[in-house]
Amino acid sequence: MIAESGSVSRVRVDLGDARSYDVAIGGDVVAAVAELPARAIAVLYDTKVEALAARTIAALGERVVAVRGVEGGEDIKTLANAAALYDWLAAAHLDRDALLVAIGGGTVTDLGGYVAATFLRGIAWAAVPTTLLAAVDASVGGKTGVNIGAGKNLVGAFHHPVLVAIDPAVFATLDPRDLAAGMGEALKTALVADPALFTLLEREMPRALAADPAVLATIVAHCVAAKARVVAGDERERDDRGGRAILNFGHTVGHALEKTCGYGTLRHGEAVTLGMRAAIALSRERGLDAATADRIDRLIRAIPTPPVAPASDDVIAATASDKKRKAGRVRFIVIGDIAAPAIVDDVDERSLRRALTTIA
Amino acid sequence: MIAESGSVSRVRVDLGDARSYDVAIGGDVVAAVAELPARAIAVLYDTKVEALAARTIAALGERVVAVRGVEGGEDIKTLANAAALYDWLAAAHLDRDALLVAIGGGTVTDLGGYVAATFLRGIAWAAVPTTLLAAVDASVGGKTGVNIGAGKNLVGAFHHPVLVAIDPAVFATLDPRDLAAGMGEALKTALVADPALFTLLEREMPRALAADPAVLATIVAHCVAAKARVVAGDERERDDRGGRAILNFGHTVGHALEKTCGYGTLRHGEAVTLGMRAAIALSRERGLDAATADRIDRLIRAIPTPPVAPASDDVIAATASDKKRKAGRVRFIVIGDIAAPAIVDDVDERSLRRALTTIA
Repeated sequence: MIAESGSVSRVRVDLGDARSYDVAIGGDVVAAVAELPARAIAVLYDTKVEALAARTIAALGERVVAVRGVEGGEDIKTLANAAALYDWLAAAHLDRDALLVAIGGGTVTDLGGYVAATFLRGIAWAAVPTTLLAAVDASVGGKTGVNIGAGKNLVGAFHHPVLVAIDPAVFATLDPRDLAAGMGEALKTALVADPALFTLLEREMPRALAADPAVLATIVAHCVAAKARVVAGDERERDDRGGRAILNFGHTVGHALEKTCGYGTLRHGEAVTLGMRAAIALSRERGLDAATADRIDRLIRAIPTPPVAPASDDVIAATASDKKRKAGRVRFIVIGDIAAPAIVDDVDERSLRRALTTIA
Repeated sequence: MIAESGSVSRVRVDLGDARSYDVAIGGDVVAAVAELPARAIAVLYDTKVEALAARTIAALGERVVAVRGVEGGEDIKTLANAAALYDWLAAAHLDRDALLVAIGGGTVTDLGGYVAATFLRGIAWAAVPTTLLAAVDASVGGKTGVNIGAGKNLVGAFHHPVLVAIDPAVFATLDPRDLAAGMGEALKTALVADPALFTLLEREMPRALAADPAVLATIVAHCVAAKARVVAGDERERDDRGGRAILNFGHTVGHALEKTCGYGTLRHGEAVTLGMRAAIALSRERGLDAATADRIDRLIRAIPTPPVAPASDDVIAATASDKKRKAGRVRFIVIGDIAAPAIVDDVDERSLRRALTTIA
């Protein structure tokens, strides 16, 4: 699944049809983007990574017909910003063969991908994720979306990019909080799908948190390959007994924490790191052996998170509006062992309340 | 392809996978909607067909958790209305297994379908088209969308309904202009894909325009079956040499007329009827024989359209921003004979100007 060529490794995301695409990880990812065949290209980029954006735009040359910088962050994922981007693309006279390149963290790729999904009923797009979180989470799976008042990602589309290009060196240039947030999502992937990655993280967490690009490239390749396997089996998250839904480990509580603390207070990956504490507590109740749970808890707690102390009542109320409810019941992912996830929908309020004590 | 059971005939739209669905045409379509298995249902309806909406809601029973009336019309297809509907669905706590039923003309089904396509990254929806145009055009193909300042349907998604239910008796209750607009689209379908329908329309146009339900049911069944065949072969309109694009006969000029005259002045089907005059003029230049062209012109002109006299310069400019441009060139559909369409992208301005003289 992982092919290396020079310093760039490629992981194939096989969707069983022409939409299959590559994730390129390594040094010269700008060249991989420039190889894409589109005649007209619009570039949406995060102003935090202006240097990378400038290199990419230069490599794409005169095919670039529109360029727009945005300051990445959860608050840009709005319907109003999507509307402004539609006007921007229409003004550039992009047609259905055009390409949108989104360079930035997950909020920029989520917004850019959603606009690409819905402009002219769908144009091609490429993602250049510049945070570890976006690289390990948002870059595979085709999920795009924006937030509305009632909740995060409640509006969106499944729309796979034609290429994802990741340069782990850029992670070192960003806020260390972004890196830690991404490590939370990487650990989640290990816990539900990749025991070898779990061992790697136990050994390399300090170097990873110090933004060592070689270690990060290996972690990203593991995460992307694991996620690609899971997504290939359940593209639209319709498998009730497992499939793609297992990737939501830590997310039911994580999403509720993001909402309760106010969007923007916690990064998504930080919320997932905290949510995983609760998920491990629930897993212990349902048979995860104590020694393994302790190892996992140590690794979760090795990832820095901001101090938050949300009221349990608010968090519990927020889980009830999570979009992953199924037939009205709130669903949680638990694990019986590393890489042995299960979905449960019978967590009672007392158990949840106990699990939430691991967070405060 | 057309199966009859009692007074309801069913046309299967075969998409080659689980998304395939039925179009039910006939008297007791409310029962067909009520058979759908969803646990929670939201109903969006056009206030012009309140009686049909009330019958449907009653048949769906207590599974209906949200009901909202809108006054159908091109001006409702906005991103702002989509945003309001997301809030409405979120407030009703709809989950991903919910169903949205959209009852109304094409503007209501386009808007409702788009909201269903993007809420929670896609929930199921059923369409109950209540105008002839929506029945013959919007009900098959999965196109949903809204308008933005730069043009019509520039934002949208392909999202097939799980059922389309059509009661031709409702057409008689609406503005005769709606019926005529739908006949334009029906004639278009005949011209690009169904010679038998063309003969039927030559014979039955007066009864059809008088809203005879039996004649209309036959016409709708023909149109739906023809469109289903075309769509099945080219679901996402990606076939450059024909495929689904042929359904845009009359639409390049039609869309330009809608824009030039101001959205809402011409109904979509009226604009297509006028656009077909230009398309037949272009077809004559490219070899359509005069006798056939004359027969077609007579039938086009038998369909009432409002008097409009847009400036040719404005119409020509508007064609240049049509979203069906391919690699920067404006594309037109012409026919060499009935049901023998072709796509051309080399129409020069003089030819287009000559063709537009058939409209004023």
